[in-house]
Amino acid sequence: MKTYLDCIPCFFKQALEASRIAGADENIQRRILDAVAEALHEFPLEASPPEMGRVIHRLVQKYTGSVDPYLRIKERSNRLAMSILGKAMDILDHGNDRLRIAVELSIAGNIIDFGVNNSLDIEAELEKILSTERNTTGDEDRVFFHIDSFRESLIDASSILYLGDNAGETVFDRILIEEIRKMDGTKKITYVVKEKPIINDALEKDAIDCGIDNVAEIVSSGSDAPGTIPALCSDEFMERFRAADMVISKGQGNFEGLSDTKRTVFFLLMAKCPIIAADIGCRVMDIVLLHHMPG
Amino acid sequence: MKTYLDCIPCFFKQALEASRIAGADENIQRRILDAVAEALHEFPLEASPPEMGRVIHRLVQKYTGSVDPYLRIKERSNRLAMSILGKAMDILDHGNDRLRIAVELSIAGNIIDFGVNNSLDIEAELEKILSTERNTTGDEDRVFFHIDSFRESLIDASSILYLGDNAGETVFDRILIEEIRKMDGTKKITYVVKEKPIINDALEKDAIDCGIDNVAEIVSSGSDAPGTIPALCSDEFMERFRAADMVISKGQGNFEGLSDTKRTVFFLLMAKCPIIAADIGCRVMDIVLLHHMPG
Repeated sequence: MKTYLDCIPCFFKQALEASRIAGADENIQRRILDAVAEALHEFPLEASPPEMGRVIHRLVQKYTGSVDPYLRIKERSNRLAMSILGKAMDILDHGNDRLRIAVELSIAGNIIDFGVNNSLDIEAELEKILSTERNTTGDEDRVFFHIDSFRESLIDASSILYLGDNAGETVFDRILIEEIRKMDGTKKITYVVKEKPIINDALEKDAIDCGIDNVAEIVSSGSDAPGTIPALCSDEFMERFRAADMVISKGQGNFEGLSDTKRTVFFLLMAKCPIIAADIGCRVMDIVLLHHMPG
Repeated sequence: MKTYLDCIPCFFKQALEASRIAGADENIQRRILDAVAEALHEFPLEASPPEMGRVIHRLVQKYTGSVDPYLRIKERSNRLAMSILGKAMDILDHGNDRLRIAVELSIAGNIIDFGVNNSLDIEAELEKILSTERNTTGDEDRVFFHIDSFRESLIDASSILYLGDNAGETVFDRILIEEIRKMDGTKKITYVVKEKPIINDALEKDAIDCGIDNVAEIVSSGSDAPGTIPALCSDEFMERFRAADMVISKGQGNFEGLSDTKRTVFFLLMAKCPIIAADIGCRVMDIVLLHHMPG
């Protein structure tokens, strides 16, 4: 996805938030915003928003000396998600269509980062999202929820590359991966994390803390962009990306980086940002399962 | 009020909105945002936000050639406000405390600009704001609503300087001014508009279209800032500002410019912006009547 002009005010908002989380005083915050303004001047709108996100968070790291400002937030997210795993499994066990519910849970798990910032009652919120979803008798209310082709692709796929998003959410990814393994234990599933700290994106340690190592091989994208941007990923990762029978991509950042990719990808995300929702053609806060099939 | 760092993302949002209203294409929009970023670099945070607002809208005018991008919006606001004047008078005639309701109406009239942009049902919204207000038995729920000192000051004041805010809202200012005149027809009331087009702020023409010329003398602040910033106003205006027995200041922009002034001012505003609400110490969307008494 290209960068829209509407992303620009948001870049400054993100920079300010990250500066504060990194403990910058007002002077440093101002210097970071000035540096973002300068960097923006050179930034081509054809590039995707996570490319600018990467620049912003590198500036925050440079000016504050904090290598991983979101470390505590990620740790809190992991703990919070682990604490409601039982409840999530309960929802799964009481449903008729386990794969569908596991997909919905993995997408809804994206609200964990709202909870950490705003003290939402995540458990209640999750229940609400899922009950709204389950009350829809079919998929008519959904703009994009390609569960049937997702299911079919899963049956055929021997190798699956699963692109992770945020810490905490990782716990809900594990639920979906476990459901996939139940279909066929011989499938090779690889879970992708970021190479270095970037916002609250999951690193190898977060994936392990959430038990992903029990259900999948964990590899790095080779990049510290908050999304999968092919040009910034390692050759090794790109080889896996091209070779996998099926790619499951979680979250907005990975969608932004890959929405123009030439290969088939299943994008699973909550459309929290109005610009992304407009780009997809769905409503804000929609649960989206998009079967991306290039031309 | 000084400029908070949180105002910076909002400056870009305002610039983008104004560029689009002025009909700029994507390229020009981008150039305007770049120019705002450059101007921001030099902007001292000790200055108040409307000073930057003025810079932004001058840039929009420069890059688009549009001298008054909000002209149609202002005209629509005036018509919309005139069309619900009857309803507003009805609310006033059925209340016990006419001055209090006239104050509330003049503040609530500030939502007109929401309506013009978002097609809210302004009449229903106005009724809602006022019924919520009237349901409060006292002023305990309000953080700042200094109606008693406002009433006392009015009784004593022979000359009143009334600082207008947006077009449309002007109609509701007229209601309050008429109520003040009913208390004592000999009071000299002066209504202040902006010198040149700036966002949707009322100009002399808007005040006349809303019938202000029947109830007050109309003068200009001598400035095109979207708020009253003493250093940018004409000497003639500042003479009036210092000499008036009472100053009534409407809206956020005038508050931002005058919140540190050395003279007594009554600020009447809806705290629509979270930063302004925090600066005042009230809640977002509160109806505020603040008796500002320096030192």
